[in-house]
Amino acid sequence: MTATRFFSDNAARVHPRVMAALEAANAVDTAYDGDALSQRLDDAFSHVFDTRVEAIWVATGTAANAIALAHFARQWQGVLCHREAHIEVDECGAPAMYSGGAKLMLLKGEGAKITPEAVSERLAAIRPDVHQVQAAAISITNATEYGLAWRPDEVASIGDVGREHGLNLHMDGARFANAAAHTGFSPAELTWRAGVDALSFGFVKNGGMNAEALVFFNGCGGAGVRELRKRGGHLQSKGRFAAAQLLAMIENDLWLTNARAANAGAKLIAEAAGDRLLHPVEANEVFIRLSATEAASLRSLGFDFYDWGQMSEEGGAARLVTSWDQDAEAVAPLAKALAAL
Amino acid sequence: MTATRFFSDNAARVHPRVMAALEAANAVDTAYDGDALSQRLDDAFSHVFDTRVEAIWVATGTAANAIALAHFARQWQGVLCHREAHIEVDECGAPAMYSGGAKLMLLKGEGAKITPEAVSERLAAIRPDVHQVQAAAISITNATEYGLAWRPDEVASIGDVGREHGLNLHMDGARFANAAAHTGFSPAELTWRAGVDALSFGFVKNGGMNAEALVFFNGCGGAGVRELRKRGGHLQSKGRFAAAQLLAMIENDLWLTNARAANAGAKLIAEAAGDRLLHPVEANEVFIRLSATEAASLRSLGFDFYDWGQMSEEGGAARLVTSWDQDAEAVAPLAKALAAL
Amino acid sequence: MTATRFFSDNAARVHPRVMAALEAANAVDTAYDGDALSQRLDDAFSHVFDTRVEAIWVATGTAANAIALAHFARQWQGVLCHREAHIEVDECGAPAMYSGGAKLMLLKGEGAKITPEAVSERLAAIRPDVHQVQAAAISITNATEYGLAWRPDEVASIGDVGREHGLNLHMDGARFANAAAHTGFSPAELTWRAGVDALSFGFVKNGGMNAEALVFFNGCGGAGVRELRKRGGHLQSKGRFAAAQLLAMIENDLWLTNARAANAGAKLIAEAAGDRLLHPVEANEVFIRLSATEAASLRSLGFDFYDWGQMSEEGGAARLVTSWDQDAEAVAPLAKALAAL
Amino acid sequence: MTATRFFSDNAARVHPRVMAALEAANAVDTAYDGDALSQRLDDAFSHVFDTRVEAIWVATGTAANAIALAHFARQWQGVLCHREAHIEVDECGAPAMYSGGAKLMLLKGEGAKITPEAVSERLAAIRPDVHQVQAAAISITNATEYGLAWRPDEVASIGDVGREHGLNLHMDGARFANAAAHTGFSPAELTWRAGVDALSFGFVKNGGMNAEALVFFNGCGGAGVRELRKRGGHLQSKGRFAAAQLLAMIENDLWLTNARAANAGAKLIAEAAGDRLLHPVEANEVFIRLSATEAASLRSLGFDFYDWGQMSEEGGAARLVTSWDQDAEAVAPLAKALAAL
Repeated sequence: MTATRFFSDNAARVHPRVMAALEAANAVDTAYDGDALSQRLDDAFSHVFDTRVEAIWVATGTAANAIALAHFARQWQGVLCHREAHIEVDECGAPAMYSGGAKLMLLKGEGAKITPEAVSERLAAIRPDVHQVQAAAISITNATEYGLAWRPDEVASIGDVGREHGLNLHMDGARFANAAAHTGFSPAELTWRAGVDALSFGFVKNGGMNAEALVFFNGCGGAGVRELRKRGGHLQSKGRFAAAQLLAMIENDLWLTNARAANAGAKLIAEAAGDRLLHPVEANEVFIRLSATEAASLRSLGFDFYDWGQMSEEGGAARLVTSWDQDAEAVAPLAKALAAL
Repeated sequence: MTATRFFSDNAARVHPRVMAALEAANAVDTAYDGDALSQRLDDAFSHVFDTRVEAIWVATGTAANAIALAHFARQWQGVLCHREAHIEVDECGAPAMYSGGAKLMLLKGEGAKITPEAVSERLAAIRPDVHQVQAAAISITNATEYGLAWRPDEVASIGDVGREHGLNLHMDGARFANAAAHTGFSPAELTWRAGVDALSFGFVKNGGMNAEALVFFNGCGGAGVRELRKRGGHLQSKGRFAAAQLLAMIENDLWLTNARAANAGAKLIAEAAGDRLLHPVEANEVFIRLSATEAASLRSLGFDFYDWGQMSEEGGAARLVTSWDQDAEAVAPLAKALAAL
Repeated sequence: MTATRFFSDNAARVHPRVMAALEAANAVDTAYDGDALSQRLDDAFSHVFDTRVEAIWVATGTAANAIALAHFARQWQGVLCHREAHIEVDECGAPAMYSGGAKLMLLKGEGAKITPEAVSERLAAIRPDVHQVQAAAISITNATEYGLAWRPDEVASIGDVGREHGLNLHMDGARFANAAAHTGFSPAELTWRAGVDALSFGFVKNGGMNAEALVFFNGCGGAGVRELRKRGGHLQSKGRFAAAQLLAMIENDLWLTNARAANAGAKLIAEAAGDRLLHPVEANEVFIRLSATEAASLRSLGFDFYDWGQMSEEGGAARLVTSWDQDAEAVAPLAKALAAL
Repeated sequence: MTATRFFSDNAARVHPRVMAALEAANAVDTAYDGDALSQRLDDAFSHVFDTRVEAIWVATGTAANAIALAHFARQWQGVLCHREAHIEVDECGAPAMYSGGAKLMLLKGEGAKITPEAVSERLAAIRPDVHQVQAAAISITNATEYGLAWRPDEVASIGDVGREHGLNLHMDGARFANAAAHTGFSPAELTWRAGVDALSFGFVKNGGMNAEALVFFNGCGGAGVRELRKRGGHLQSKGRFAAAQLLAMIENDLWLTNARAANAGAKLIAEAAGDRLLHPVEANEVFIRLSATEAASLRSLGFDFYDWGQMSEEGGAARLVTSWDQDAEAVAPLAKALAAL
């Protein structure tokens, strides 16, 4: 299916080394997060990020995001984010449930990337009184919902504005691996060195099964985080299997290897798409102009992808996502078909 | 470790057939719950329960309980349960978060089993006005937190009182398999035929990895259930791996086979414990009187278990739990050591 | 102060007949809403609206709005409203607290008035799945935050779109009286006949002290409404004083008389403002272009008003609000000063 | 009605001086809590309590309690209180709504008074892990739901246990005035000097109309308190009328004068009740044994009161409450009737 499945990296297979890690974890027998694997997470992620971090496993990116935001924002506060951010558009209001009703405060920005100017402008427009919801945090997505990667200086420009106003900075890194692989910057440079306080570090789209990491920098975790995880029903009794996945993904940089493969596939598709491209391809997502007829034509060849908005004869758009098992070689048939349209 | 691990069935291994099912599910490639495995759940569980049900996977029993109760009770309502119920004592208030603050209304009862009399008495004491929280549901645990199994007539006695007052009945079945195996009654008899509207059907303690089923009877599911799952961050993107576990557990009655093995182990321990027994053993949990010295003695032999409350020289109590891989043969060393105390 | 106070109708005096009603209510002695005055509300408001309604008192418009929206929208649902709606901008997230986290879904529109097209477009953009928050209700403000009055056909155009999608329609009528007085349409025509299911009927800005009415049409009230009021701490033990205010305001159409006076004052100011006017004046609010110097000049004469956004030498805007005790005669000095600028 | 109304002090008249204060406040014209009266509250209450306090008005005791508890307890935490506390029994779960689901953790105790031993025992039983809800605060009611007054040393004994565990202490003082009047201790001695961090200081039952004070000691107020008030819809736009009531009540110790009168009435009734008394009378509530026949007999004489639980021929109980306008002289007819039973 690697030749034809482009509708979501959520649908990809679990990497064999992750499967092997699950098998190995079956020998461990401690409950919740008291096991040796879960206990290793802080150290293992501290190594990845070159600083002391607090790292916990959760089952989904939605849970990671919601816990982080509820940790930073009280119910009467708000979180600035792009109006097309996953937390706003695709999580059924999870941050509101976890926080007890904190408000997402929406900003515009090209390619789902917010700007420090937009943040400043929005903050300036909030009267500092109790009638208006005051911002407590900013959330950005890296890579963005349109597959754009953030550079450290861009992240820092947001982090700086936030810090001036006492806001925490959260990064939804469902595709953090792809962004890091594309930019070549280190995990540290892309996060805490640029002002990030918490990262939802995605692994499921990148070869994992059902474990994501929620990583806190700058001592921003602590009281409340694990309570929110438990309260959300995310403290798995056999948590060792979640920890095992995360450890397998970061050992020997499997997360980067996988992301590089997916990115390479996306790059080849992008080249084939030529001027159909709607956004620069800086991760593993390719957004292209595509008419209904062209879409049907590709689908008749077996290629599966996601319409992006309404399709019509005159035009339309599609999203094509590559996964860790879809490197340049694997996506060659699609690239060829696209070029032939 | 099967000879020495008695502190929790949460710590047990995943059954090989579940591991195999995960391996097999890796070939499937649809996201969220759109895959063929997830789509089979309603049919598969309808077969188990001999009626049309709605069944969804979630990662934990806490999530299953919280979703079910939030589905039944609005934020201003309440849920009657035993004061030692898991939802009250061990879930960090999850039902309150999911429901927006519904109240758990606590009842007494021997062995963590509530009685229809206690339910009636409590309901009679609630003034029917807006000052007092009105009950919307009842939740019972089967097997109870002390390892007691409910008989269908007992369940029905609770269901009947509830129905008279328009309350839904939820069953926390983290160890439903053990209860069913002990009593010999069918899943249908123990649930909807006795008035149960929703069951948190546990598999993790019984050989699964990280998937439980939330099953709705009598058409009591529907709008809100899947929204709550998503909102709680429990709609896994690779949900096929959750579905695969559940299907593996109910195929060929693996859930019953596993539960019978664990129950047999518990029974042997109970026999060895003799008059140390604090509760009848009707599932896979054994509560015994044990002094601090005796506890230390058992632990020096490698046996691992959970103190139940304060231990002292004069007395104390311990909880010993068997798992699917701890049948009578596996627990013989413990039984022998107990008898020798 | 009637000659100089224009910053808010919230600051106006309580009407003498309301004060008299409070005095009279002191003779009544039943608690909560069991008193004869509170019990008369349904009938009295049914008379005003020419249909059977359910009417309760609350202390503030924020409470009325939050209860209505929490009644219509479950925590995982949303409410469409203008992005400058009071519920979004000035209530510190009250609807989210009362509903357990329902989302406000923001629309644009001239003068803070949403259009059926904007509603339709937004609804069409919501994917009907559990990832996205589904709309449950629409809320409009009449008069709008910029003092525009809705005509019945305009309301109905929103109500119609809503009804097609199964949404309830709420009207924030903090200045409903002013809108009704301006348009000349009856309360019935402006509400339930045009599809409104609930009205936050404001009296405090119009001569009351601390009582607003929350009115449900079409049988849309019922279970949950009074529970939410109590749970929000809004069931006053001496509720008779709230009821007395509402009854005083609707007896002999005092609410209309007061609104007409305020509207007349606003109209005179608008005429004096000439082409400074930023919005048509259809209620008791006047928005005008005003430079910092001009603002200072008016203030030096004693006039008190609210800057609307940033003021500068080049320009700026101000909001002037008239109250029930500021009819045309009372505002003549301001009109004169404005004309003289 | 002062001779016959004994069902609730909630039903009593508003004191003439409070009415006069409302009339006077009508001349003030600033919105929300920016007016001179509201701005005087901190000073005025600081004077009453002989220390620097933060004091805000709210409409009801339920709102005061809910805001205080939500301020002290995060959603995943709990508040220890008596199982018959008003916050548990009579507020439709308001603390849970305001806090986002914090749990009330119930204790027993004679006359609705909790003991330090009960608090300690409960705290000791909570495992310090994320599975169990951890306590964040303790709430006591003074006078209790059964009309018992707390002495400073009793309050301090609770406060001490709380402080050892890092818990805040809240006092629901719906009838604080009656308790203070009975004991003769100063407001300071009964509150912050004994470890109280927040007091819901009730005035409505004691001659006010619809304003209670929420008072924070020890710098325990601050960020969040006013946001919660606004979010709950309790920031009244004409807040000056709330402030005026509170100021009228504390000026010249009207609150104490009123409470003494009510207490004197209750005391006379208690003496007449003799051995019918179920609880010592230390405030303005009298609980007596009364059979259904006796209750009917008293009611036939016009006396109105509240059955306390089920009434029968064999027995039953009644609650009789006096108000500020029911001093010893006013209640003489009831005392006579009681004695004559």
